[in-house]
Formats: sequence, C-alpha cells, structure tokens
Amino acid sequence: MFQVAELGRKVGKREYKERSEVLRQELLYLQRRLQEEGNFQVIVDFAGVDGAGKGASIQKLASWMDPRYLIAHAWGPASDEERERPEFWRFWMQLPPRAQIGLFARGRYSRPFLQRAYGKISEFEYDAELDRVLGFENDLAEDGALIIKFWMHLSRDAQERRLTELQSDPVTSWQVKDIDWEHWRIYDQFVAAAERTITRTSTGKAPWILVEGEDENFRSLEVGQTLARYLREHLIANGVKLNGENETLQASQPETDTLPPRPEGLVTVLSQLDMSKRLSKIDYKKKMRKYQGELHLLQRKAMKKGVSSIIVFEGMDAAGKGGAIRRTVAPLDPRIYRIVPIAAPTDEERAQHYLWRFWRHMSRAGHITIYDRSWYGRVLVERIEGFASRDEWQRAYAEINDFEKRLADHGIVLTKFWVHITPEEQFERFSARAQSPLKRWKLTDEDWRNRQKWYDYEQAAHDMIARTDTLDAPWVLIEGNDKQYARTKVIKTLCQRLSGRLD
Amino acid sequence: MFQVAELGRKVGKREYKERSEVLRQELLYLQRRLQEEGNFQVIVDFAGVDGAGKGASIQKLASWMDPRYLIAHAWGPASDEERERPEFWRFWMQLPPRAQIGLFARGRYSRPFLQRAYGKISEFEYDAELDRVLGFENDLAEDGALIIKFWMHLSRDAQERRLTELQSDPVTSWQVKDIDWEHWRIYDQFVAAAERTITRTSTGKAPWILVEGEDENFRSLEVGQTLARYLREHLIANGVKLNGENETLQASQPETDTLPPRPEGLVTVLSQLDMSKRLSKIDYKKKMRKYQGELHLLQRKAMKKGVSSIIVFEGMDAAGKGGAIRRTVAPLDPRIYRIVPIAAPTDEERAQHYLWRFWRHMSRAGHITIYDRSWYGRVLVERIEGFASRDEWQRAYAEINDFEKRLADHGIVLTKFWVHITPEEQFERFSARAQSPLKRWKLTDEDWRNRQKWYDYEQAAHDMIARTDTLDAPWVLIEGNDKQYARTKVIKTLCQRLSGRLD
Repeated sequence: MFQVAELGRKVGKREYKERSEVLRQELLYLQRRLQEEGNFQVIVDFAGVDGAGKGASIQKLASWMDPRYLIAHAWGPASDEERERPEFWRFWMQLPPRAQIGLFARGRYSRPFLQRAYGKISEFEYDAELDRVLGFENDLAEDGALIIKFWMHLSRDAQERRLTELQSDPVTSWQVKDIDWEHWRIYDQFVAAAERTITRTSTGKAPWILVEGEDENFRSLEVGQTLARYLREHLIANGVKLNGENETLQASQPETDTLPPRPEGLVTVLSQLDMSKRLSKIDYKKKMRKYQGELHLLQRKAMKKGVSSIIVFEGMDAAGKGGAIRRTVAPLDPRIYRIVPIAAPTDEERAQHYLWRFWRHMSRAGHITIYDRSWYGRVLVERIEGFASRDEWQRAYAEINDFEKRLADHGIVLTKFWVHITPEEQFERFSARAQSPLKRWKLTDEDWRNRQKWYDYEQAAHDMIARTDTLDAPWVLIEGNDKQYARTKVIKTLCQRLSGRLD
Repeated sequence: MFQVAELGRKVGKREYKERSEVLRQELLYLQRRLQEEGNFQVIVDFAGVDGAGKGASIQKLASWMDPRYLIAHAWGPASDEERERPEFWRFWMQLPPRAQIGLFARGRYSRPFLQRAYGKISEFEYDAELDRVLGFENDLAEDGALIIKFWMHLSRDAQERRLTELQSDPVTSWQVKDIDWEHWRIYDQFVAAAERTITRTSTGKAPWILVEGEDENFRSLEVGQTLARYLREHLIANGVKLNGENETLQASQPETDTLPPRPEGLVTVLSQLDMSKRLSKIDYKKKMRKYQGELHLLQRKAMKKGVSSIIVFEGMDAAGKGGAIRRTVAPLDPRIYRIVPIAAPTDEERAQHYLWRFWRHMSRAGHITIYDRSWYGRVLVERIEGFASRDEWQRAYAEINDFEKRLADHGIVLTKFWVHITPEEQFERFSARAQSPLKRWKLTDEDWRNRQKWYDYEQAAHDMIARTDTLDAPWVLIEGNDKQYARTKVIKTLCQRLSGRLD
C-alpha cells in the first residue's frame, strides 16, 4: 500500500515558489468563502510516521491561511481533568465551530494505534477501537463536517535519514525523542498497523490521504492542494458560489475622502510619533530572519519553563495588525499559540461581565494567546460608538489595570501593541484594497465610516495609553506606515519581552 | 465582633415549619422574577468556622429554590488545569450567568485566610490579598451583580460540641476531618483573622453577614431570609416589578379541552402502563426516608470511587419531572450534582454538532449530572415540530446509542426516566395551575398547543424507547399519575442502579 508514497517525488525551489503562491491565494479565498457562507466544520488530521512532517505541515498551512479562523492542536498525554471524563470528551471540546478549520496532530487514532503496533491489543480489540473512532467521524460528517485525514509516510530508510538529520541540527534536535527511535525499530509492525488502520477507516466521508513525507516542498504542496480541492468541492456541494458565479464582492470607495480636518490643538502620543521610520528590503529580510529565529528559540524555552505570553494588537483599520500577527506566529509551533479575534460577543459571553470572555481564553502554562483586538474595545469602539455607558468605559481603565496585574502576578508576559498609521497612509491602503480584486472584500462601508471618526479614535487611544501603560503591561507604539519596519519592531519587541522574563 | 453571633438563638420545630414555608414561597417567587427580568448575577458565598453549616446551608437553599437556575460549587484543591492559570481563573469560570444564582462554599478568601490564621503571611501581605479579592468583587458589583457573603460563626465551645456531635454519628462522621480539629485548636488566631477579613472586606456592594451557626433551624431561616431581602431589594433597584405591581402572569385556559380523540389502533408501551398505581402518604414518607438515605450513602461511596452518574428526565408537560428532580437531589450534597435544564441552544452550541452541548457538561469523576430534558429532544420535540429533518432525527437513534455506549464504557451510570401521565391527569394539572396564583406562570399557551399533539408525542416516545432502551442505558417508565408513587419509584431505581454498579 505504501509504495505509492515512496516514489521519491521532489519539487524544486522555483517551482515550489510559484505553485505555493497560487495555492496560498486559493486557500485564502476558500477560507474566506467558508467563513462567509460555509456552515460546516473542517477537520484536518495529521497522523503517520515520526519525522514525516505532521507538525511542519500544520505550521505551513497555518502560515498560508488566515490564522483567525483556524485552530491547531496536538494532543499530548491527557490532563487530570481529561482523564476523569470519557476519552472522546477532549476531542469534542476541541472541535472548531462551523465555518472554521481545525488542524490536529495525532489524536483519536493515536492511543489504539500504538497499542496495536506494540502488540498490546489484539486485532479484534483494535477493530473495536477503530469502530468507535469511525462512529465519531460519522456523526460529524452526517452533520455536514468536512473531514480529511493525512497519513504522512516515510520509508524505513527515509525515516532513519530524517531522524538522523533532525538530530544533528541543534535547532531541530529537540524534535527527536527516544520514543521516535523506538517506533523506528518496530517499523514493520508500525506499518502493518497503519495499513490496517487506513483500510478500515478510510471512508467516503472521512478519507485517508497518503502523503509522501520526504521532500518538504512536495509534501507541503500535496497537503495544501488536497485540502483546497476537498474544501472547494465541499463548498460547492453546500451551495456556496465560488469565483465569480454571482459572488458578491464588497467594493466601497466614496467619491471624496471622508476624513474631516484635524481639530486644532489636538496633540496626542500618537501625533508625536516619527512616522517616517522605514526599513529597506534587505535589512528587513536580514532582521526578520534573526528575530524570528530568536523568537522561536525563546518560545521553546518559555514552553519548557511554563511561561505564558499574552499579546494584544490594537490599532486603526488597515494599520497592518493582521500582517504583523502572521509574521509573529510564522516561526512558532501552531500547537502552542492561539489567535483570538475579537468580534461581537456571543450570547453566552453577553450573560457575563465583559472581562469574562477574555478570562475564558486563558491558556495553560507555556502557551501564547494573541488577541486581534481585545478588552480595550471597551475604551475604544464601545466608548466612541456608545455601546458602553460613560460610567462603564471610565471605570474600565481600573478594571483593565487590575486584570492585567493579575496576569503579570501569575508570571504571564503581557505585551500590548498599538500599530499606528497616518490618515494619509490609511487612505492609500483603503484605495489599494478597493482596486485589488483579491483584497476588495476586506473593505466595507464601515471602514469609511470609522475613518470619519479618526480623531475620536486617536483621542481615545491616547487616553487609553495614558491610563493603562504600566510596567507590567506596557504599550508599545508601532510606527506602521512602513510595514517592514513595523513587523520587525513587533517581533524584536516580543523577543526582548520574553528574554527579559526568562533571564 | 462575634458576640452578636453567640447569643444561642434557636427556632422551634413548629415555628420553623411555618416560617420556612413562607420563606420558600418568597424565594421561589423572587428567583422566578430574577429569571424573567433580572439581568444580573447573584453570587452567594459561605465562609466561616468549620461545623457552622456552610455546606448544610447551601443544601437547604438549593432544596428550597428551583435547582434549574442555580449552581452550587465548593472549591477544593486546584486541578492541574487550574494551577497553570492565574488563581482567579477558576472563580471567573464558575460564575453563574446573569439571572442565575451561584452558591459557593469557601473560594476566593480561603487560601489567604488560612495562610493568615496560621501566621504564614504577614498582615501586610494579607491586606494585599484581600485587596485583590475586593477588586474582583468590585468588578462584578459594578456590572450589576448582587454579592452576599455569609460568615457562619460558632463560639469555641459550640464548635467543639458540634464537631464532637458530628463525629459521633456514623452518618455524619465523615464530615469531620483532622484539619477541622486543627483549626479548632487555633480558634483564637482563626477568629482574629476572621475579624480582619470581615472588617476589611465588608463593603456596601459585597457585605458580610454574620450568622449564628449553632441551631440549624435558626441558621437556615437567617440565611434564607437575608438572601430574600437582598434579592428583593436588588430586583426593585433594577426596576423589576414585584408582587402584583403590574406584574404580568400567564393564565391560559381554553374554553374546551384541546385534546383530539385517540387515534384508532394506537398501542404504545405507554398505553400499556398500569396508571392506577398509587402510594399512601404514610408509605410514601416511610419509603422516601429510606431511599433518600440510601441514595445519600451510595452517592458518597460513588464519589469516593469516582463513579459518575448521568440521569435523564423526559416526559409529557406537567408529568412531574421537576418535582421528581427536587426529591432526587434533596439528600445529595449540592456541590456534587448539577442540574442541566435543556432549552433552546445558545449560538455557540448551534455552531457545533447537536451532541456537543451535552458533551460539554460532562462532569469530573464521581459527580452527578441531571438533565431536565436532554439529547432526546432530537427525536421528540425536534421531530414533531420539524426542527430536525427526517434524516436527522432518524439517524439520531444510532448517534444517541453510540453516545450512551461511550458513557457506559467509561463507567458512567446512566439512567433515563420517562415520567408518564394520562391525558386526563394532564388536563387536571393544567387546570389546577391555571387557577393557582402561585403556579399560573408555569402554564403557557404552548402547553395547550403541545397537548393537541399528545398522540404524536406518545408515538415518538414509543419509537424512542423501542430504539434506545439498552442494557447499559435502560429507559425506566414511571407511572406518574400519583406523584408520591412516581417520586418513590425514581429514587428507588436510582438506588438500584447505583448499588448495582458499586457492588
């Protein structure tokens, strides 16, 4: 069965670059349509031979797509909370909501599979376990979920090569554990159990896809293209129109700019920023490589020490928060961070104090939680739009300081970015969005309406920074007119914050 | 400070009976108005001297009120999930949603209080801890929450008497632990720390109420009446009309009965029940005492062994599910059970498979979860009202059997009750509700509409029982025309199920 995944297929650098760019556009587009109209869950599993790129594939997909509508998770040993409940409880609780994508490493097949490979359970018992897994997948598929299971494969020799190679590089040696070599030693039993698993559990509703894991370029494209193909088909089967067939695109540009003149005498911490700061492409590439590498290593250390981080991104529309977030998470293991985009609260959240929805996302030790907008909405949009009463947003400063103090007291590294641009730069970005068919959907009438209130927002941001910039939870102002400068400063700051805490 | 709670006040049996009945009516009424129009959380804390009745008071309040809109929780040592997050995370996550009441034993004061009593932290450090607690309470109170903190007090001698008394009775001896005697030995330090706590943290928004804990009757009335008084005031302050001031009461009774004639040839497992079964008042009292006592002991054993129970109540409107649930939980420690009333799903629940909302309530080991209606809504109301498609409810039988199999495989004791009444009995109960000012709110036009579909429901229940009555998860049919018979059978069945599993 596995010889189809031992053909030694490779993709060269140039071909990879071209094809991955096309693929990325397609994935982003499909993900957006899923978000807009696809009322189903997408569940993507990665299993297979150690070293065949389960984690790396998840990281690659996460870097290609919009991380706000995507969750990644790898199951380790069960916590005590999990052990006291039926085994599948934790799989249920980690499911992405409809219209979102979940990427999972290991999971529901892992325990029984290893037990079978090591001969600890009979084939009969193993089949019963597989039936339980199938029942779970079937329930979800019947409910409309798209389920794809990737089996990442390596031949015995290729696995040995791969593990040796990973081990010899100090940057990746941590990825190889004794248990991986143990699995390699029983390669034949491992593959026999895998064959049984795949033949028994590859169904029309939840197919297994064999992926040749040796060449990273080939494997990444294979995984991405398969996901894109299945997602496209599933969207169409669900009646979602794709690529122009009646698809409505937001395209919104008023005849004249909506920005009123700057009020006289308005001086803020933001108007004092040197917005001319720039970084050349060469410097950007060099520094980015340096700081991303540093961040990767620091975060591994933080994970080991159990030091959690919370990162907040606030800023004007089109300031570049999303791009900065994507560069921040690029060097990180997607299983240890979560991006929480803050939109309107759900009804369960509305039934609690406004800070509750942020408490509920508190991660376990060592993880990173990134907020794309945050609790500061209370003193920004809610203040300006009147969603919070004067009394509510006024007392929010103290509530927020108190909240952040608690996080800091627990040892969490909290960093808050205000990504700033000038109104002129925003106008240019809005106009560029309106003209680009790929970005037009990002721009809505509301963005233009918000632009009219630029100075209200600037004043509110000024007040916010003045009242909530503390030693434990500092505001870092990012001069964002040049994206290269901005992204570099963000990641450099995170490195400093983290290394300051870890030393 | 504490002499006001050492006056030896007592309430005699007859007085207690009279006053508690009035109080219970008032609490139920206020709780209903809170549910209907009160958009705030109610947080009731119990702290104080060991043996002064913290747990017993929670149990008493829970038995007086509607357990569906109430949560009770006692904090023990933090789990590993909890230890990896800021200390207050678990307090946030256990907050009742708006319009509900949370009863808490120990909690946010506990750790620092004991550290202070044992002299492990300085007064200065203790004050800083108290400030953090106050900040939390203040946030919630500013958001509208009603917070009441009961300090249950006993004099040194009374505590000694109480602990000795509890210890000498085999039924209650488990309640006294070595640590309780340790606390008694440092009574003076304990009380000094208590005085500091109360003086520093009794605020207008979150007052401490001293309660004399020696006499159970006195203490129960004191706690209940205080809660009623504060709740009444808080409702009025929130603009909720009480007792007739424009309060609208549902009162719905059509001129003629809406029940169509029984379809010819309709024979179901329900129509075969002997609905004449009855139990005299004397037998009821005797058996109830017996089985409730048994259930109490069995559940303590189950808690120790980590055996969880899930109990499902389904049945026609007015069949007596609520009354049976109240009698079931009466002998149980409210900190180990949770009642989950199933109404319309929240939007977060709608974004998942329909079984997800039941998985999420899965308890830790040893606890009891009681469903007032359940996942069977899929094949009952959703089938009949067309909320689920034919395909959806048809495949739900298999999904449910699979779900319940998983629970049973994990060792959970699952018991499902169908509480049945005759259509004639329902008519009488509806009419009685319509005429009783205290119960009128329970009856809505929808109840009468559902009654029209009696035979559809009977058929659906028949199909459900036929297809989901399994050895692991049996349906127990309860002849419900006589409430005394029905309640006794429910509790007796639970004893049998639990003792069968524990042996």
